Amino acid sequence: MTAGRHFLQIPGPTNVPDRILRAIAQPTIDHRGPDFAELALDVLRRVKPVFGTSGPVVIYPSSGTGAWEAALVNTLSPGDHVLAFETGHFATLWRDMAEGLGLVVDFVPGDWRHGVDPAVVAERLAADTHHRIAAVMVVHNETSTGVTSRVPEIRAAIDRAEHPALLLVDTISSLGSIDYRHDEWGVDVTVSCSQKGLMLPPGLGFNAISEKALTAAEGARLPKSYWNWAPFLEANERGYYPYTPPTNLLYGLREALVLLESEGLPAVFARHDRHAAATRAAVRGWGLEVLCADEREHSSALTAVLLGEEHDANEVRRIILDRFDMSLGAGLGKVSERVFRIGHLGDFNDLTLAGTLSGVQMGLQLAGIPIDPDGIRAALEVLRA
Amino acid sequence: MTAGRHFLQIPGPTNVPDRILRAIAQPTIDHRGPDFAELALDVLRRVKPVFGTSGPVVIYPSSGTGAWEAALVNTLSPGDHVLAFETGHFATLWRDMAEGLGLVVDFVPGDWRHGVDPAVVAERLAADTHHRIAAVMVVHNETSTGVTSRVPEIRAAIDRAEHPALLLVDTISSLGSIDYRHDEWGVDVTVSCSQKGLMLPPGLGFNAISEKALTAAEGARLPKSYWNWAPFLEANERGYYPYTPPTNLLYGLREALVLLESEGLPAVFARHDRHAAATRAAVRGWGLEVLCADEREHSSALTAVLLGEEHDANEVRRIILDRFDMSLGAGLGKVSERVFRIGHLGDFNDLTLAGTLSGVQMGLQLAGIPIDPDGIRAALEVLRA
Amino acid sequence: MTAGRHFLQIPGPTNVPDRILRAIAQPTIDHRGPDFAELALDVLRRVKPVFGTSGPVVIYPSSGTGAWEAALVNTLSPGDHVLAFETGHFATLWRDMAEGLGLVVDFVPGDWRHGVDPAVVAERLAADTHHRIAAVMVVHNETSTGVTSRVPEIRAAIDRAEHPALLLVDTISSLGSIDYRHDEWGVDVTVSCSQKGLMLPPGLGFNAISEKALTAAEGARLPKSYWNWAPFLEANERGYYPYTPPTNLLYGLREALVLLESEGLPAVFARHDRHAAATRAAVRGWGLEVLCADEREHSSALTAVLLGEEHDANEVRRIILDRFDMSLGAGLGKVSERVFRIGHLGDFNDLTLAGTLSGVQMGLQLAGIPIDPDGIRAALEVLRA
Amino acid sequence: MTAGRHFLQIPGPTNVPDRILRAIAQPTIDHRGPDFAELALDVLRRVKPVFGTSGPVVIYPSSGTGAWEAALVNTLSPGDHVLAFETGHFATLWRDMAEGLGLVVDFVPGDWRHGVDPAVVAERLAADTHHRIAAVMVVHNETSTGVTSRVPEIRAAIDRAEHPALLLVDTISSLGSIDYRHDEWGVDVTVSCSQKGLMLPPGLGFNAISEKALTAAEGARLPKSYWNWAPFLEANERGYYPYTPPTNLLYGLREALVLLESEGLPAVFARHDRHAAATRAAVRGWGLEVLCADEREHSSALTAVLLGEEHDANEVRRIILDRFDMSLGAGLGKVSERVFRIGHLGDFNDLTLAGTLSGVQMGLQLAGIPIDPDGIRAALEVLRA
Repeated sequence: MTAGRHFLQIPGPTNVPDRILRAIAQPTIDHRGPDFAELALDVLRRVKPVFGTSGPVVIYPSSGTGAWEAALVNTLSPGDHVLAFETGHFATLWRDMAEGLGLVVDFVPGDWRHGVDPAVVAERLAADTHHRIAAVMVVHNETSTGVTSRVPEIRAAIDRAEHPALLLVDTISSLGSIDYRHDEWGVDVTVSCSQKGLMLPPGLGFNAISEKALTAAEGARLPKSYWNWAPFLEANERGYYPYTPPTNLLYGLREALVLLESEGLPAVFARHDRHAAATRAAVRGWGLEVLCADEREHSSALTAVLLGEEHDANEVRRIILDRFDMSLGAGLGKVSERVFRIGHLGDFNDLTLAGTLSGVQMGLQLAGIPIDPDGIRAALEVLRA
Repeated sequence: MTAGRHFLQIPGPTNVPDRILRAIAQPTIDHRGPDFAELALDVLRRVKPVFGTSGPVVIYPSSGTGAWEAALVNTLSPGDHVLAFETGHFATLWRDMAEGLGLVVDFVPGDWRHGVDPAVVAERLAADTHHRIAAVMVVHNETSTGVTSRVPEIRAAIDRAEHPALLLVDTISSLGSIDYRHDEWGVDVTVSCSQKGLMLPPGLGFNAISEKALTAAEGARLPKSYWNWAPFLEANERGYYPYTPPTNLLYGLREALVLLESEGLPAVFARHDRHAAATRAAVRGWGLEVLCADEREHSSALTAVLLGEEHDANEVRRIILDRFDMSLGAGLGKVSERVFRIGHLGDFNDLTLAGTLSGVQMGLQLAGIPIDPDGIRAALEVLRA
Repeated sequence: MTAGRHFLQIPGPTNVPDRILRAIAQPTIDHRGPDFAELALDVLRRVKPVFGTSGPVVIYPSSGTGAWEAALVNTLSPGDHVLAFETGHFATLWRDMAEGLGLVVDFVPGDWRHGVDPAVVAERLAADTHHRIAAVMVVHNETSTGVTSRVPEIRAAIDRAEHPALLLVDTISSLGSIDYRHDEWGVDVTVSCSQKGLMLPPGLGFNAISEKALTAAEGARLPKSYWNWAPFLEANERGYYPYTPPTNLLYGLREALVLLESEGLPAVFARHDRHAAATRAAVRGWGLEVLCADEREHSSALTAVLLGEEHDANEVRRIILDRFDMSLGAGLGKVSERVFRIGHLGDFNDLTLAGTLSGVQMGLQLAGIPIDPDGIRAALEVLRA
Repeated sequence: MTAGRHFLQIPGPTNVPDRILRAIAQPTIDHRGPDFAELALDVLRRVKPVFGTSGPVVIYPSSGTGAWEAALVNTLSPGDHVLAFETGHFATLWRDMAEGLGLVVDFVPGDWRHGVDPAVVAERLAADTHHRIAAVMVVHNETSTGVTSRVPEIRAAIDRAEHPALLLVDTISSLGSIDYRHDEWGVDVTVSCSQKGLMLPPGLGFNAISEKALTAAEGARLPKSYWNWAPFLEANERGYYPYTPPTNLLYGLREALVLLESEGLPAVFARHDRHAAATRAAVRGWGLEVLCADEREHSSALTAVLLGEEHDANEVRRIILDRFDMSLGAGLGKVSERVFRIGHLGDFNDLTLAGTLSGVQMGLQLAGIPIDPDGIRAALEVLRA
């Protein structure tokens, strides 16, 4: 027994609001009956603005990883070339998946402290005069590093290159937390999931799909069944599913979308921006370094903190979990052990952030890492402003 | 507003017990932390007896359809032959999936009133002297027809033919409701899902896997990423997942497994047998016909009722939904319009069955179908015995 | 572990709808803050039509028994005479309470098979020429007998006698189930509670109060503090409470009131009337006797079944609980052992009633009581009509 | 829509743990059936150690105010004298209740910054040579001031005076948060409620009863019915209630008692002591004054902060509610406007306290009250130690 509420400050799954948990606890209904159709049509309509799209959004019973796979198998054919970028752990995993499915990945190396460089996109596409690159794969917000790639500039680079490649974007840890615009930014497939900015438990994967992607899907020859868009788009028209839908998570999604509408997306994004700024103020106040190295690319969803080589980030996290019942994100892949990650996305407010940063401050001290204890005060200055 | 509780008597999703709904409504936790590992290890251990296996069970964030795909892509290669049987709508869909994934399906036609004929299995395998058939695909309980195939006899037929084909069995609407034994019956992959006998909302797919299937997986060349067993088996060892797990449904699964253990699987199966017998007594008491044509193959999970050609089964269902707030299963595929299906599986008891059959009786009368109103009395005789 | 849902067919507490249970599970809030005031004002407004009043309704954190006490201590003084009627167990308990509090009770004996006789009211009041009787206490629906007294005729009798006595009415098991009109029928204090027609767990007591009762309260000298209306009426004006309010049950009450509004009170009453008629059809179909002996006084909330002297009603209930997981009401007081009570009030529908009556039929048979098994069929005829 | 979780930092109702909310949301059961008896017996057994008693505890469907009344009406007779102390708002209200019920209250005035002075108890009792004082009424923890009276010293004073008066103690805001021992300290009636240290919604009132109080009850002549201990003690023996019990809150109480057992009462008390010390460190760090003026009497459940006359505590609270979605306690009675109260009791941990104190610090600054922003840092030093 640990008193009080656990602080779940990993960058997802995020804290699920009570309202959503109660919504999920409603009795399951007949997925072929009229009440289900009403639910599904409502959800499919309300979800569009969150993606910034007027086009179709397919919602799978899956994790976000499944939605990655769906984006690839619906638009590409065996042997197709894709351009991807080593912005961090998840970008690397997505690369691995693409290769595993039989695609040829042109993988641009990176230092895990920067986002996708639009100039490199431009350069690679310009060099691809035969248009062998079928798709550009970008992770909008790298959950492993707290770096947000500048999708509009990437889009502009593709356009300037006059290259026909599809633009596939992973918004797994940005959707509903960081400003994102599928249509306006000319994204072809936006991949996302339920357990981050949408404030739901894991179990839903999303694909927002452009007209161009739909056309590409007609010729795509990677084998697919579960992920196949076509039967979804047809069944969704009438509010149904090609197979048994994840009814209870859809109850929760409806509630989540109502919450986001009620706060208003601009307010949601501004809140995340403020919390990220306060978090960086604390990190710098402590005298520590933020992993993200480009001021234009700070994530508003999470902050990765870089420790000196003599310190063990996992020990810090262990102390904080034991003493303060708070879960933080581990460093992943290349930066494990030297990095820990503070999630500040989803259903979250100023005082919970203050508690979170207080816990990090005390944990750093308890781990014997020399910090300036005015970090928390710096964060409160930002929050108070 | 409709007063009282909806009667969800489709053959799945089934009525989710309150305890499970409350379990699902627990806050989501860190899927990389120690509490999650404890949950996952507990669930992975407790689920084995329900499949009758001591081997691994992989649990996907997916519908049952995903678990079908997983069974195929992990064990087979492009161009492999599989033997399948037209026992009903879902067997036909599974055939379609296999073909879509690039397999060659030898599909034995059927009349939708019988299960897989073990003699035909024997005959087909005997004829396959070159062992081109890589797998036999069987639907244990056809949800569209209420017919249960005799898996032990099918196994015996394969053995007698000394054929190396894998045996893949769909237990989507039988697991946890009808006696089933993965190990004892020599099944190689058992496919299942959460929303039927396991009494959960939809969102989990299952594969129970034999040693032989694991060996087959090493050489299987269908492309796969999300469904790939290998990273699951490795991560599950320590209670983790290769990608974000469906935490809240796993909370519910734990509760469901505790409930099944507490009632005891033999008692659970006997309960379903009794309810099925009472339902058939009602159907025959009304003077109507059960779709299943073989006494050895009656499903204990659902009963499909066959109406004469002059009657519209969908109109009966519509009246029952409108007047009595009860959902029944529609006829599917070949038998739509002349068949409706009564689900009597999952979290269910005598009085709810009595209410269900009362509603069917009144609905048949209101639809103008001539029946003998002693049907309900016949059912009560069985329940009282 | 018992599979399926318990049948709670006692005449209260009744089956609480899931929506109400979820509403109650919302986090408790500051009872002095603006959100609480909004909740309380909303509930206090919505509850009035259920009582049929435009006057104040006080909602106590208490059982219904507390609301009985409140009705007495707010309007009466030590030594006051009250007129009460032995219509059953609860009327007798209320009498005992009045005596315990120092009132003098003129208690008209009864046979527990009839309601209050308006002619006796007239006669007693006519005889009370000195107007020593300060109040007439009536139980609208006797939960122990299934007999509903005719309040409008009682009112008329008081009026004809031109007697100033207050009319205090217990609607504990009728409110929200059986037509009731505090203002129109000239009732001075209506007593009620949460766990019957209001479909809530126990824990709220109600007093609806007439102008005349408010005036009487000014001179009432029974000591009181917790039950004192005055601080309630003052604090409720602004949506507050004189002491800590039962916040979570008020969440549930709001939901219950929305449900009743949504179905519409006339439809709610008609539903209860139909279910009571179907239940009586079953009882008579079995060849058994309904306890209520006057056709004008049958309760629409519950039916008490009278067995012959050679049968043990508690044994019938025990068998039904053990075999069919259904709770029925015991016979109370004078009629214990020969009577059992079937609750058919609150959140309830046709198929649940059919299941209930099926369980009673089977239980009677298992107890060896000779009945005609066409009872259930007779009930279904009523429900189908 | 306000993002994130509300901070309910009033000194009760406290934050109800999710586990308890889910427990309360279980379906209501038959209060005369065997499952209820099991629940009640379990709760009545588990609750004793929380009071530090081996004697009976009566649990009412009521607020704590009702339990106050129960303590008086069960032990006293009209015209009895009681000794009470003006330690704050609630002690004054209890005085008012006693007078309203017909008791004569000897009320010792106080400055709302100190607890009951044991020397005054000794002096008053010594002067009462005719033993007219029937009871001494003490509020253990004054919720309005954050001052805890020293019950063992009061007991010793009564004993030294060899006075037979009963000792009645209100533990409404201390039970389950601050060390308390009904038996060891010789308390005769301990009054409490559900919504503070027991972490439940409001709706339960408690009386723990000594042998001496039971004897006194036999001769007590204040009228009573609802609050009468006798029928409770008899019915509780078998796990039942004299009237309809508050079943769903009893579900929650069982869960609360399991939580307290699991953490262990000494750990629970130590946690509250630490949080109170950290809170006082913050208050003093800000340069503000704690209302409690005696170091021996600081409450571990709440801290009342005293502002200078030029500041408006209600404005501070308003700003904090608007900007940071945190509810704090208002100043009550004599100290309204100059005092606000920080609740740190119940289900609460270090990081939530850090968030709470951060919010208070920012709110004080936003209200223009000159404070030293190192207050939060001082609190973190205590929490980290």
